[in-house]
Amino acid sequence: MNIELKEKGYNAKQASYILASLSTQKKNEVLHKIADMLVENASVIIAENKIDVDNARSKGTSEVMLNRLALTEDTISGIAEGIKQVATLDDPVGEVINMTKRPNGLLIGKTRVPIGVIGIIFEARPNVTADAAALCLKSGNAVILRGGSEAINSNKILVSVMQKALVECGVPIGCIQLVEDTSRQTATELMQLKEYLDLLIPRGGAGLIRAVTENATVPVIETGVGNCHIYINESADIEMATNILINAKTSRPSVCNAAEKLLIDRSIAEDFLPVLANALQEKGVTLRCDSEALEIIKSGELATDEEWDREYLDYIIGVKVVSDVDEAINHINTHSTKHSEAIITNNHHNAMKFHREIDSAAVYVNASTRFTDGFEFGFGAEIGISTQKMHARGPMGLSELTTVKYIIFGDGQIR
Amino acid sequence: MNIELKEKGYNAKQASYILASLSTQKKNEVLHKIADMLVENASVIIAENKIDVDNARSKGTSEVMLNRLALTEDTISGIAEGIKQVATLDDPVGEVINMTKRPNGLLIGKTRVPIGVIGIIFEARPNVTADAAALCLKSGNAVILRGGSEAINSNKILVSVMQKALVECGVPIGCIQLVEDTSRQTATELMQLKEYLDLLIPRGGAGLIRAVTENATVPVIETGVGNCHIYINESADIEMATNILINAKTSRPSVCNAAEKLLIDRSIAEDFLPVLANALQEKGVTLRCDSEALEIIKSGELATDEEWDREYLDYIIGVKVVSDVDEAINHINTHSTKHSEAIITNNHHNAMKFHREIDSAAVYVNASTRFTDGFEFGFGAEIGISTQKMHARGPMGLSELTTVKYIIFGDGQIR
Repeated sequence: MNIELKEKGYNAKQASYILASLSTQKKNEVLHKIADMLVENASVIIAENKIDVDNARSKGTSEVMLNRLALTEDTISGIAEGIKQVATLDDPVGEVINMTKRPNGLLIGKTRVPIGVIGIIFEARPNVTADAAALCLKSGNAVILRGGSEAINSNKILVSVMQKALVECGVPIGCIQLVEDTSRQTATELMQLKEYLDLLIPRGGAGLIRAVTENATVPVIETGVGNCHIYINESADIEMATNILINAKTSRPSVCNAAEKLLIDRSIAEDFLPVLANALQEKGVTLRCDSEALEIIKSGELATDEEWDREYLDYIIGVKVVSDVDEAINHINTHSTKHSEAIITNNHHNAMKFHREIDSAAVYVNASTRFTDGFEFGFGAEIGISTQKMHARGPMGLSELTTVKYIIFGDGQIR
Repeated sequence: MNIELKEKGYNAKQASYILASLSTQKKNEVLHKIADMLVENASVIIAENKIDVDNARSKGTSEVMLNRLALTEDTISGIAEGIKQVATLDDPVGEVINMTKRPNGLLIGKTRVPIGVIGIIFEARPNVTADAAALCLKSGNAVILRGGSEAINSNKILVSVMQKALVECGVPIGCIQLVEDTSRQTATELMQLKEYLDLLIPRGGAGLIRAVTENATVPVIETGVGNCHIYINESADIEMATNILINAKTSRPSVCNAAEKLLIDRSIAEDFLPVLANALQEKGVTLRCDSEALEIIKSGELATDEEWDREYLDYIIGVKVVSDVDEAINHINTHSTKHSEAIITNNHHNAMKFHREIDSAAVYVNASTRFTDGFEFGFGAEIGISTQKMHARGPMGLSELTTVKYIIFGDGQIR
């Protein structure tokens, strides 16, 4: 086993016990110290980040990706502001839930506690480093971060500054650690570090998520892949449908809650599909259609069978004609990634059927899928969007970074 | 991939969509039909079970194990009664939680839904077959059962009778299925049947649990291994401590919530350890002691280092002298299986510290660990006791067999 991992795992576990007992006040003090020190050390951070950016540029990385990688005084201030925001959020730890008295006099309840040690495996964007560290700290969890090699110098300096802040506050550096070895082998070992890790959250594309779920022995929360559907039912208000579709597809096509597929009822396809297609194409969206939709739209491309399972993250949408709400539900449950789906309808029965039978984290009636987000849902933060069913589903805030344990107060009871 | 698994996985997934929409009334009707048909078919079930018992006997299986395997008219009536009990429990499915109105007018809430398809891998006892099937059905989940080869004939007939009941009620047989191929290869494939399985619950010994967590790609809830501790603090009422210790160790040593270790403060060890040791030895318990405890007790055996991590499930207990509550907490967090631990104390500070810092599913103050059980906790049922932190922790009832999805009602909102 990799010595770096074993050592960091051990440190994290020890730190997690101390973190679990820290007062909210102390945790907020640490968060403020981290935010201040990131701003104070902005020039060093930018200098280290420049090494990553230059390396990436010399490898021919696209401008879009370089922008996501680059840190400036402004982005660092933004990160610091975000961390101070986390300090203002309610601390979920210590809440007691459902305490009841049993017939034998035992008081049995659940208390909310940190999960322990959380591993986060993520791709290039270095702002995830500080963001994830702050959310884990506020929820009382030690975190082991493992970013991509493209951002290794940025991640090293960010974690080193955060660790200095921990030390200044008298909190163990095991609270926030970075795996500096970015090899695939070490990533795999991290996924299997069951002795120390309580949870693994991958943040990134479909390839990363798949690698983690296939190799991890530590429990994983799958996040973020979104093959999201907008289904326009025959009773839809077509202006509302158009607005929602355009918003869901084009307001930010690169994110996981953007719409990737349009389903429309046969009975209205002839009349409305050309209107919708026109609106989409005006925004530069390419339409990949089933044969029936293509016959109506004409200006689209024919979709392949594999297309229905794909997340484009681009100005592309799959378009399919369906008979009714049943076919729509069946298609979505078969092909979606269980992230977010919307029905646009004015028919109450169809709305309720869709909401009841769709098997996804967020099911919308007459609203854009773009709302699936911790901030939009009012959590004030987000560590990711769970697309699986265990533990947490949908946007995860601080409370999803906690678990419960039963506490039982007795007076000598035996069974 | 194994054809049996693929077919059963597909059937289960399809059945799960139908199950998710069944009314509580209908599900209860099915449960009653299953209970009645098990009783009606008792003689056939007993005949098939006899094949398993005879096979086991010819392999030299112990009488204890044969008793656990054997089905009689009485045990079958008991199973049927248990299933009717499940019918009386509240149905968790459909409950709406925390629905709030956002500033933009969106109504956002969570609704409780079945998990989908649950795989249960278990060892010899055939009563688990009917029990698990009933709990999954009531919570709206399709179940794929995989029992051990020792009980294959019993499991086959039990599932076949239950499936006949499903058919009579017009519900798909995909709701309750058995993997008939009991090879290890097929078990491993079941653990990786991500396309169809939403959750895997292993029920059995430490070896089974380890095999599942190491091989599964489907999310797993670890259950049941219990290296439980009783820590007697210096301020303990020694009569209460003795009663709790004897109850926790000897009322049923073969179960996971039985005590396996005794920790006692140094300041009272000299006076009370002989009393406790005597009480334990009178019940036939062997004491495996650290050197300090052995010096006081004399009649015990010296414990090896590995001992502190072991679950005996027998009339054996590990005994260790500690300095104080801090050493006790540290020892328990290092060696326990995170199931159930108890402090016996009259010191409020120590009680609260223990309850706050112990990292286990159930933390007791002045009560026996034997209470960690779905029925004792008032859930009316139990599918297992989770010893991990994701999704569910401690005894799992019907509501732990469900998940939530977000439902969002809008009126054309876009972002």
